[in-house]
Amino acid sequence: VVVTARPSWAKLQTLCEALSARPDVELQIVACASALLERYGRVVDVIKAQGFSIAAECWSVYEGENLLTSAKETGALLGDLAGVLRSLDAGVVVACADRHEVLAVAQAAAYLHLPLAHLQGGERTGSIDDRVRDSVSALATYHFTCTDLAKYRVYGLTGAADRIWNTGCGSIDLAKRALSAPPVTAEELGGAGADIDLTQPFGVLLQHPVTNEAVFARQQMWETIDGWPRDLQLLAWWPGQDAGADRISKALREEALHRPIHTVRNLPPNRFLKLLTQASVLVGNSSAGIREASWLGVPVVNIGMRQWARERGPNVIDVPHDALKIRQAIDQQIAHGRYPSSALYGSGNAGARIAEVLTRVCDRADTRQVG
Amino acid sequence: VVVTARPSWAKLQTLCEALSARPDVELQIVACASALLERYGRVVDVIKAQGFSIAAECWSVYEGENLLTSAKETGALLGDLAGVLRSLDAGVVVACADRHEVLAVAQAAAYLHLPLAHLQGGERTGSIDDRVRDSVSALATYHFTCTDLAKYRVYGLTGAADRIWNTGCGSIDLAKRALSAPPVTAEELGGAGADIDLTQPFGVLLQHPVTNEAVFARQQMWETIDGWPRDLQLLAWWPGQDAGADRISKALREEALHRPIHTVRNLPPNRFLKLLTQASVLVGNSSAGIREASWLGVPVVNIGMRQWARERGPNVIDVPHDALKIRQAIDQQIAHGRYPSSALYGSGNAGARIAEVLTRVCDRADTRQVG
Amino acid sequence: VVVTARPSWAKLQTLCEALSARPDVELQIVACASALLERYGRVVDVIKAQGFSIAAECWSVYEGENLLTSAKETGALLGDLAGVLRSLDAGVVVACADRHEVLAVAQAAAYLHLPLAHLQGGERTGSIDDRVRDSVSALATYHFTCTDLAKYRVYGLTGAADRIWNTGCGSIDLAKRALSAPPVTAEELGGAGADIDLTQPFGVLLQHPVTNEAVFARQQMWETIDGWPRDLQLLAWWPGQDAGADRISKALREEALHRPIHTVRNLPPNRFLKLLTQASVLVGNSSAGIREASWLGVPVVNIGMRQWARERGPNVIDVPHDALKIRQAIDQQIAHGRYPSSALYGSGNAGARIAEVLTRVCDRADTRQVG
Amino acid sequence: VVVTARPSWAKLQTLCEALSARPDVELQIVACASALLERYGRVVDVIKAQGFSIAAECWSVYEGENLLTSAKETGALLGDLAGVLRSLDAGVVVACADRHEVLAVAQAAAYLHLPLAHLQGGERTGSIDDRVRDSVSALATYHFTCTDLAKYRVYGLTGAADRIWNTGCGSIDLAKRALSAPPVTAEELGGAGADIDLTQPFGVLLQHPVTNEAVFARQQMWETIDGWPRDLQLLAWWPGQDAGADRISKALREEALHRPIHTVRNLPPNRFLKLLTQASVLVGNSSAGIREASWLGVPVVNIGMRQWARERGPNVIDVPHDALKIRQAIDQQIAHGRYPSSALYGSGNAGARIAEVLTRVCDRADTRQVG
Repeated sequence: VVVTARPSWAKLQTLCEALSARPDVELQIVACASALLERYGRVVDVIKAQGFSIAAECWSVYEGENLLTSAKETGALLGDLAGVLRSLDAGVVVACADRHEVLAVAQAAAYLHLPLAHLQGGERTGSIDDRVRDSVSALATYHFTCTDLAKYRVYGLTGAADRIWNTGCGSIDLAKRALSAPPVTAEELGGAGADIDLTQPFGVLLQHPVTNEAVFARQQMWETIDGWPRDLQLLAWWPGQDAGADRISKALREEALHRPIHTVRNLPPNRFLKLLTQASVLVGNSSAGIREASWLGVPVVNIGMRQWARERGPNVIDVPHDALKIRQAIDQQIAHGRYPSSALYGSGNAGARIAEVLTRVCDRADTRQVG
Repeated sequence: VVVTARPSWAKLQTLCEALSARPDVELQIVACASALLERYGRVVDVIKAQGFSIAAECWSVYEGENLLTSAKETGALLGDLAGVLRSLDAGVVVACADRHEVLAVAQAAAYLHLPLAHLQGGERTGSIDDRVRDSVSALATYHFTCTDLAKYRVYGLTGAADRIWNTGCGSIDLAKRALSAPPVTAEELGGAGADIDLTQPFGVLLQHPVTNEAVFARQQMWETIDGWPRDLQLLAWWPGQDAGADRISKALREEALHRPIHTVRNLPPNRFLKLLTQASVLVGNSSAGIREASWLGVPVVNIGMRQWARERGPNVIDVPHDALKIRQAIDQQIAHGRYPSSALYGSGNAGARIAEVLTRVCDRADTRQVG
Repeated sequence: VVVTARPSWAKLQTLCEALSARPDVELQIVACASALLERYGRVVDVIKAQGFSIAAECWSVYEGENLLTSAKETGALLGDLAGVLRSLDAGVVVACADRHEVLAVAQAAAYLHLPLAHLQGGERTGSIDDRVRDSVSALATYHFTCTDLAKYRVYGLTGAADRIWNTGCGSIDLAKRALSAPPVTAEELGGAGADIDLTQPFGVLLQHPVTNEAVFARQQMWETIDGWPRDLQLLAWWPGQDAGADRISKALREEALHRPIHTVRNLPPNRFLKLLTQASVLVGNSSAGIREASWLGVPVVNIGMRQWARERGPNVIDVPHDALKIRQAIDQQIAHGRYPSSALYGSGNAGARIAEVLTRVCDRADTRQVG
Repeated sequence: VVVTARPSWAKLQTLCEALSARPDVELQIVACASALLERYGRVVDVIKAQGFSIAAECWSVYEGENLLTSAKETGALLGDLAGVLRSLDAGVVVACADRHEVLAVAQAAAYLHLPLAHLQGGERTGSIDDRVRDSVSALATYHFTCTDLAKYRVYGLTGAADRIWNTGCGSIDLAKRALSAPPVTAEELGGAGADIDLTQPFGVLLQHPVTNEAVFARQQMWETIDGWPRDLQLLAWWPGQDAGADRISKALREEALHRPIHTVRNLPPNRFLKLLTQASVLVGNSSAGIREASWLGVPVVNIGMRQWARERGPNVIDVPHDALKIRQAIDQQIAHGRYPSSALYGSGNAGARIAEVLTRVCDRADTRQVG
């Protein structure tokens, strides 16, 4: 199982739990790219803290976060990871989602003639990620999709009718668990900037840069904060690793001079999901607003094009990068309150199902090939 | 236009001629990977000899030709090429076919937000190349296919109905020209090993290693040479760059101790096509037997699985790696003689049509993007 | 001229000015590594603002700043830079100092058979940099040292008596110029944190992490700030790029909660030098305290081992990482005030002399070699 | 112990034997670069056949063998090897000699703060290798030289009086053993080309390309073969991996059309040394002619500049690349016959002595450092 970024672990965690519980499976986790970096919350430490061991690390992220470094770091990861997969003698490689690093994982597996199990194929977000995701699907052997529509798309891409399973998304497994956990407290949350009182109404802001709108990232952030109701506490996440992240961080720092903003860098995925159930509204362009929030019934204001093509439940209001419209949508969602749960992205048992299928097909196949 | 290997140039040459003839287009050719290596005929020298200049070179091929080095060299090429494309300030990137290096070209273009025009998408050969080719299609912006069926497949893959054109294959353009050229002579052919008399019946042997049958490559070569009729002159090509090439080369050297074999390393593509029209039969697993030979009407004995899924014309007899069946098929083809020309892979004007479409769509689009 | 980091430009600027003033020299500047990164002040923008153009960029810095990424980024730079130097058709390559990237520059030049002119060879700082610096000297062709002792060391290393010149350091050229410039104002200085009044006594703190003491970096910073006199304004620089920089940055952020600290990320080298002449004392472990400050006569408190082996003038008091001793030394230097100027590291005409020698030896030699 | 090329193993074998015989040492062998390639005799298979296991492999050699690929492959090896050394948790790294890959090994160790033990430092051959070798010495911690003069040179380079030992060369250990082995037979020798009768007088030709004379490599080979006496059997080795090797191979193939040449690709080092004692003369520019042959007393005709600066015993006649002078020198050596043994490069116990010193200093030092 190759973990290349923090968000992926939320989709892979219950699968890893299910795999490590099986006596007939040897689970090896490889941590790569931003999963190793403090700036992105070093999810590798989260993984270890959950009792997993890390079989190997691949450092590959270049500083600079521009289009050129994206290419260079993917190249570096491909070379490194191929060596690691070879030395680990993997039988099947599991990767998740659509970031450019994932294509390196898929290539490393394909060129080494190792079967690749890909999670989250066939989805649409409307960005360059779609092309990368489809490109990964084209290289993958086994496909575990999160929605029915995604399953049909992967079938259209690959024609591999007997190697596609719609198991739902592992992140819904975590959302299900999160419901029964105790609420997140301000102490647990940590972070910096203005104080926050989680017992009073607050909104969560999670706005990532959009790869091909990197130059506008700063301005888009200004619109959002400008549109944020004055009387709603603002809890903002630092952006992930992508072209434009620096610009968003700058905008956050500048705006924090003008209104109280509590900023957070990281929270374990399960606690983040619990926090969402405490929030009045989730604002931004995070996939969590589309996926987990639909199951959790959290009201969401989704801004801009980043998620435009993604399937969504009834809990989402879409608005452009326009302060006024963002304001209206936030007000509307606060007025509405919680939504009923939707099973669009799974029903909370994805990890177990994927583990079961994977073990079965790998038993059947002679997965190691000559060369 | 990125040339990554000798065979690609045959598909790109007439396009480059058409592009360089246009005053509104600045053509930059980048030579990469095996296109630079003497062992594979340094097609970069052929390109220069035809009057083109080379804008940049990317050395990336690792020695060893195994699965691991395939991955490593793709990673190295991706990093290098991204830097080169950035410094050349390309408006659109053209790449061809399905080798693992081509995926590096596609990634470099996609991550830099440069539109990629891909030639030869949507075909099927039944090997891992299919997955790489589809993966490239998933990343590409404009698609120029060689057959109608390939066009439908790319449509299935990408849904990009208005960005796919079936223009036929540039190699057929060259095949058309080759017909009117003077015959290849033994002097021009060069090579080593046994003498060859091109005015007497001879067969051409072109057998590449198959990526996932690398360990059998030597044995497969033995079968073929064993099946070759004693009274038919044998003109063999050294294999291209792939896992298993060393094994095929060894088999060729060993067999040359037992029967006369004339071996050749390289010939300009146009002269190779002319040579095919002089041959009694083409034997092996080369795509030339499927593509150009169908247009030229050359009788072909296609051995093994390498081309099994490719669309073919009536000039091809398929046989397994079995000396006896190879013998029978060669005899049958010699008895049959030339076939009528088939337009399955184009009608000889692909280069001009692709250049025309490409110029038009790039004019229309603001091809340079922000970031 | 290859610029790999911000501090190097201070040594290379007057040389580049002198080279670009010569009609018989074509100057090409390549910006690499941290010279391109915003986190390190993007000296490449400073260079452009001074009217120079950048011939090529090499992005190579990995995120993570640990020992492993140092190795990986040097490897990446070596491969990239070799391609760039080849495509620029350089006649002689100029590099400066002793960071691990500089060894990549030296290797790229040596393996391409290009003569390398190395500045600042033969010095001693007492860290692993010494080994890297000597390793670069071993690969270099022409050596321009900053002190007489360094010249003798390079002679001991290379035996190349006729290819070593003690020209002094280019940073002294800038120090000479800085004297006549107008004082730095708070507006010009910029930065963040506590307010600062540059017309009142202030000290400058510049403390870099020490490569093989990375784990202590945070603790060492605490000692320094603890020892800083309460009534002396504290103007601190963010640390450069090295293992441990993150730890120092953390300490700075934490300490800023307890006492007023004005923090600055970057200032053009010439303005930084002017600022030094305005400061009561320079504290930390920067080479500027040893080199430029000796010529400027600025009182310096040098902490710890980073500069222990460097030749120094009478303006330096050395102390260990001990708050009390740091306090005493700062008090002593404030009481003493300015020192007379020392010519230990040059007399302010290094750039012109190096340019003159370099042009002469390159004329004489056929610098381009076969291969 | 990092083995980067076939010739290095001859110097490292007895050390590895001595280390693996010690209960207090865990020996890990890493095979890199050309040590893995069939074209260079895959010394990694020889090592395994001698009962050693390989802890890790690093594939890094680029095809093309030019100046640019030398730089690129060194960069690739540096990045890869750093990851491997980190994952092997090495306590001390041992490397040998002066090829460009060895500098990558030295950098990987130095940047990871691992002590490097370097064998064969301080020698002189008069080529760019001298600069690389000195550059490695500058990075190394422990130095094991082969001659007294080399010891003084390393002392001049590093000043590290207490970390330099003149133990002699491990290759002399093997030469000593070879004396008592049975003679090499034609069957054992293998190879291709003309037949050879080892019971009749024969000469051994071992001519490597010289890095900065790569374009002349072919012509130089012609001179040598032209000067070879008609009545002396010619036993030629294919050249190693370096810029120009392709040219030498071509010359060998062409000349084999004009006179009988028996060509050999590889022989275990110990058998090669035995073979030398059977030969009438060793011709070419191999270091074996200078090192082992001096101890064995084999007459040597050393051609050209490759070894000009190396210390040599009385058994060597030096000639330029001139057919006539080569002929005269070969005749003179055949007339002279065997020479008495010289201890210039050691007395046959280097491996044991290095193992003993290394174990002692590593016990004393806390070799693992923080970071």
